[in-house]
Amino acid sequence: MDNFILKGDIVFSKSMTELEISESSFAVCENGICKGVFKTIPEKFSYFPVKDHTGCLIIPGLTDIHLHAPQFPFCGTGTDLELLEWLERCAFPEEEKYSDEAYAQKAYSAFVSEMIKSGITRACIFATVHTKATEMLMDMLDKTGLVTFVGKVSMDRNSPQSLTEKNTDDLKNMLCNIQGKYKNTFPIITPRFIPSCTDEMLDSLCEIRRSYSLPVQSHLSENPSEKELVSKLVPDSDFYGQAYDMHSLFGFEIKTGERFKTIMAHCVYSDDEEIKLMSKNGVIAAHCPASNINLRSGIAPVRKLLQSGVPVGLGSDIGAGHTLSPFRAVTDAVQVSKLYQRLKDHDARPLTFAEAFYLSTHAGGFFGNIGKFCDGYMFDALVLDDSASRPLYPMTAAERLERYAYLFTDNKGIKEKYVNGKAVYLQNSV
Amino acid sequence: MDNFILKGDIVFSKSMTELEISESSFAVCENGICKGVFKTIPEKFSYFPVKDHTGCLIIPGLTDIHLHAPQFPFCGTGTDLELLEWLERCAFPEEEKYSDEAYAQKAYSAFVSEMIKSGITRACIFATVHTKATEMLMDMLDKTGLVTFVGKVSMDRNSPQSLTEKNTDDLKNMLCNIQGKYKNTFPIITPRFIPSCTDEMLDSLCEIRRSYSLPVQSHLSENPSEKELVSKLVPDSDFYGQAYDMHSLFGFEIKTGERFKTIMAHCVYSDDEEIKLMSKNGVIAAHCPASNINLRSGIAPVRKLLQSGVPVGLGSDIGAGHTLSPFRAVTDAVQVSKLYQRLKDHDARPLTFAEAFYLSTHAGGFFGNIGKFCDGYMFDALVLDDSASRPLYPMTAAERLERYAYLFTDNKGIKEKYVNGKAVYLQNSV
Repeated sequence: MDNFILKGDIVFSKSMTELEISESSFAVCENGICKGVFKTIPEKFSYFPVKDHTGCLIIPGLTDIHLHAPQFPFCGTGTDLELLEWLERCAFPEEEKYSDEAYAQKAYSAFVSEMIKSGITRACIFATVHTKATEMLMDMLDKTGLVTFVGKVSMDRNSPQSLTEKNTDDLKNMLCNIQGKYKNTFPIITPRFIPSCTDEMLDSLCEIRRSYSLPVQSHLSENPSEKELVSKLVPDSDFYGQAYDMHSLFGFEIKTGERFKTIMAHCVYSDDEEIKLMSKNGVIAAHCPASNINLRSGIAPVRKLLQSGVPVGLGSDIGAGHTLSPFRAVTDAVQVSKLYQRLKDHDARPLTFAEAFYLSTHAGGFFGNIGKFCDGYMFDALVLDDSASRPLYPMTAAERLERYAYLFTDNKGIKEKYVNGKAVYLQNSV
Repeated sequence: MDNFILKGDIVFSKSMTELEISESSFAVCENGICKGVFKTIPEKFSYFPVKDHTGCLIIPGLTDIHLHAPQFPFCGTGTDLELLEWLERCAFPEEEKYSDEAYAQKAYSAFVSEMIKSGITRACIFATVHTKATEMLMDMLDKTGLVTFVGKVSMDRNSPQSLTEKNTDDLKNMLCNIQGKYKNTFPIITPRFIPSCTDEMLDSLCEIRRSYSLPVQSHLSENPSEKELVSKLVPDSDFYGQAYDMHSLFGFEIKTGERFKTIMAHCVYSDDEEIKLMSKNGVIAAHCPASNINLRSGIAPVRKLLQSGVPVGLGSDIGAGHTLSPFRAVTDAVQVSKLYQRLKDHDARPLTFAEAFYLSTHAGGFFGNIGKFCDGYMFDALVLDDSASRPLYPMTAAERLERYAYLFTDNKGIKEKYVNGKAVYLQNSV
């Protein structure tokens, strides 16, 4: 049933700063595409079935553009560790387990089941270096109906032996294997980050990217010592992002002039030059506030990125971030922006709730036309039952959404979830 | 039934920095007092009934030493506002409603019902200036079995007309009225803060405090403009805390040399002199990380307070803080301490999870011997069912507790709650 109408209190971002609110209204979906929001159902859609969610909030799906699926099992532990100790004691030992297909099956099942119940409709995901486990994750995710990009991680230096590879042959084989296989899940070129990739690997990834027309995801300027390491490893680069750009992995293909979608996670220490190139190349910053706190990285200059024309989306960065809740990512983004202003730059106006909500629902443009219930947009939607917050007096739908985001961080109240007009989650059928 | 034994995986703070872990053990309660934790039940307690919570975590109760009960209804809204606008648009208009007893009844019922289900066993609470509504709140709280201190707020300047009073007569009458009335709920002297109290009112509160032997709670050095205002209003004071101390409302009675318990919320901008006097007078700092973020106040120097000998507890500061979850306060305290180190003072070691847990379970000593399952401590306990976090491999009880605190911020998994050996909440009986 791809033609239907949702009735409820509809909220979405009219612009980056303003919410459009239509209480007790109808959002129309035709063949997976939104036809708009109406106070009364237009004649031509009158035969569409109406799902009546009167009293519930209806909002666009939220997104998560940076997370590590294999790190899901240890979320919320190891929070006292710093980055390097954390990598050695939590992240790498866990990722090594995915060479075991039985373990991968069990762990990825738990992850996918949590993804279905969450407020996330679309995501960009790091897997591990292991191709079999990565394909298994893609198989599982494709079936959910969520739109996902999954990267087999590429890394060939400065990492545990068991997680490095000699070349990109495995990746090439995998991409060949899965061609045309999935409807909702897609591959993405995923160098772990500059410190763990040689020039040869980066050049090879660039070629693969070009021949398959794939997007790219990686990490950028997460913390000061990482940034320093990159400047030592790539002495020719003026800034971290240039080390990707030299290999045409930073939103722009030098040889052909082609532009392609690239997500760079963190950008906490991106300087003016780096920000300028991101803006020029359309590189999307994945802002991961919880992870940046937990690993003591700091706070990304989101206001500056936005003002410089860099598209920004939000990421949970599971497992350095501790929760998949995209609502928590929204409120964390607001909260850290307040501390950034107070402690770092008095001129950096904090993000409003509406702005952070926009970042999550629009994902920096990575997924195309999403985030609005406007004619022609893809119909991704969440139906939220916020009645458990029991307000004592009438609140506007915008206040209720703000309250929901701050108070319901545990999937509570997520009643239905749609992606491209297909039901991905229906509470009562679970 | 005040004599019983809880069986489960028991975790509490051995010291401020170390957790004591006793998996599959027995915590014994006799007449509301803890008799210790045992691997096998000692002969003399063998006739006590055993509540078997095998597989669950058993921890001491968490506390909330600073919150405004009347602000509960608007939690999670108004988060884009700065302090002054927030007071005018959210806090004061809401507090004015409590002159209406029917509204107070409805709003405080919702608050108390949430308190019961939360992880909080003991709390220090601001009500409003209204005595009837305050007594109503105390009536309700006393019945719950939670140990609470509730302050009728005193304020006589720089506030809306409807929230100011001429003198302390209402407070005196109220204290007279409720003498000996409650078993679990107690009054506490509560000047709102220096800007809203004249010298006359503070002197009068000092006298009332002395004659009833009451503790004190108020706000201190929350933000820079408030601090500046205080230095103008009380030009004789060298620092904010001294403005309380001049009126013997800062942990120490100048006339008699008597010491009394005092909680000061926030202390974000407490300077060396203020911290020194807090330490000398045993003034407890209520650290409210969520509130300090939401109102853009900043981050309190908790490591410095602790190193200077100031006792520290945690507060939700509802409604500037958005959630009553004391687990969220614990993890927020860890998280902001990391940002404090990164952005403010590289030498200020972040709080570990164990330290923040200690702050919550020990409440800066305000409630006496709580926070440990040791012989002679008051038996406050939470039974936590963390099975929904589905770890894929065995985790220690300490890891499970950390994970619970980060992932379960919505009362989920709170199975039973005991205060002074009495069941305050039993999940299955609700």
